[in-house]
Amino acid sequence: MSLDEETDALDENTTPAAAREAFRAGVVRPTCGVAKGYAQANMISLPREYAYDFLLFAQRNPKPCPILDVLDAGSPFPSIAAGSDVRTDIPLYRVWENGKLVDTLPDITDVWAKHDDLVTFLIGCSFTFEFPLMEAGIPVRHILAGRNVPMYDTSIKCRPAGRFSANMVVSMRGVQPDQVADAVQISARYPSVHGAPVCVGSPESIGITDVMHPDYGDAPVLEEGDVPVFWACGVTPQAAVMASKPTFAITHAPGHMFISDVPDRTYMV
Amino acid sequence: MSLDEETDALDENTTPAAAREAFRAGVVRPTCGVAKGYAQANMISLPREYAYDFLLFAQRNPKPCPILDVLDAGSPFPSIAAGSDVRTDIPLYRVWENGKLVDTLPDITDVWAKHDDLVTFLIGCSFTFEFPLMEAGIPVRHILAGRNVPMYDTSIKCRPAGRFSANMVVSMRGVQPDQVADAVQISARYPSVHGAPVCVGSPESIGITDVMHPDYGDAPVLEEGDVPVFWACGVTPQAAVMASKPTFAITHAPGHMFISDVPDRTYMV
Repeated sequence: MSLDEETDALDENTTPAAAREAFRAGVVRPTCGVAKGYAQANMISLPREYAYDFLLFAQRNPKPCPILDVLDAGSPFPSIAAGSDVRTDIPLYRVWENGKLVDTLPDITDVWAKHDDLVTFLIGCSFTFEFPLMEAGIPVRHILAGRNVPMYDTSIKCRPAGRFSANMVVSMRGVQPDQVADAVQISARYPSVHGAPVCVGSPESIGITDVMHPDYGDAPVLEEGDVPVFWACGVTPQAAVMASKPTFAITHAPGHMFISDVPDRTYMV
Repeated sequence: MSLDEETDALDENTTPAAAREAFRAGVVRPTCGVAKGYAQANMISLPREYAYDFLLFAQRNPKPCPILDVLDAGSPFPSIAAGSDVRTDIPLYRVWENGKLVDTLPDITDVWAKHDDLVTFLIGCSFTFEFPLMEAGIPVRHILAGRNVPMYDTSIKCRPAGRFSANMVVSMRGVQPDQVADAVQISARYPSVHGAPVCVGSPESIGITDVMHPDYGDAPVLEEGDVPVFWACGVTPQAAVMASKPTFAITHAPGHMFISDVPDRTYMV
């Protein structure tokens, strides 16, 4: 298959290992709607000297930064996916220097090699509860439209920790009024992947002025009567990188996640 | 009141602030059954150089070590209790050097003063869900008997992190067979305070040979037909101190907890 065919071939029935292999081979696309039933993760790698501050930042802000895995310094091998390598198995990466985005790459092997002590954090992603939402009859419109989820900077201040501070980033899904309660309850069962929404129905109350123009991802698909529902988002660490300016960082590109081997239901409480 | 009278006066109707004030004044007693409706916490303070490894240990072992608060290096002031001081507000402390218990004290102000960079972790405690258990009609026998909860070393290995490793410590409550399901479901709603049991009904399967002789706390009260139910316990960090031998540590004494101002229900999912 060509890369284009491989991109199209990835869907909810793709296994996590096959999806990672496709990304390793060069496929670049958002991972929403791929590998149904398996937890997806946000990624950030930081020099060892920032690891404690960042881990504490995550601990103090568990809604946007629920930690699924922390790799040992220098190791690219996660425990939540057999045989995987965080340098190659994510579709698209961002490279940061002093809080500035300096590169966007489908493979970070060369960049990684210049640093010997990177500590990598894998953080829960709301894509994990999108399939349970759909199974409950709640249409997840960006998946149905083949788009990335819309994500927004907000005025919600995270609790700072050491050198890290940030305003929370959120993802948004439009939900019909009679399905909001179900969406809340279903997502609440997954606290490790952001859990219940942080805001329902009032974008301006969290500093979002134009819901049709997200800061990350694709423009939303909203149907007549949809209530905008906002969940804490694992892009928040990237807002922390921009605000706090660590000397170096690598993250995934928003919506382009690490797909783990861990079944969603493992994270259900 | 004399200290003895103050000790007897502490009960479920005592406010967290009044309980902490009593402990600050010198009252020494286990905190089970005190200040109904408020989360209690295990405590460990470590030199800054151990903080990342310990925070990672906690993150990798969320059942025994659910973090409620991490204080900045050198600070004794928690965010989860207004005006409180972790050097005085716990009824009894243990001081450790190189993994050995060297002192047991009701106040650690003098010991603390010799270290300028202690990082203090407050960790969820199963005492938090004991009142919800009782409200559901499940008698918590050690409270009714005015005893400390029994706690046991086990053969369950925690995931190591950096310099820290340990076998899990568990607490035990005897529950009638027709109430075990309720006890599981109620405690499962509190993942931040150990959540659902790690073992139901078979002490030997987790390496406990004599349930009547716990390693920490008081001997259990078991009634005819009771099933022993085991929950992960926040004394596990003390097992990690014994196994991993950090140069210095201060912990609470088992069962003698920090009582926070945070309502139990805050931790319910």
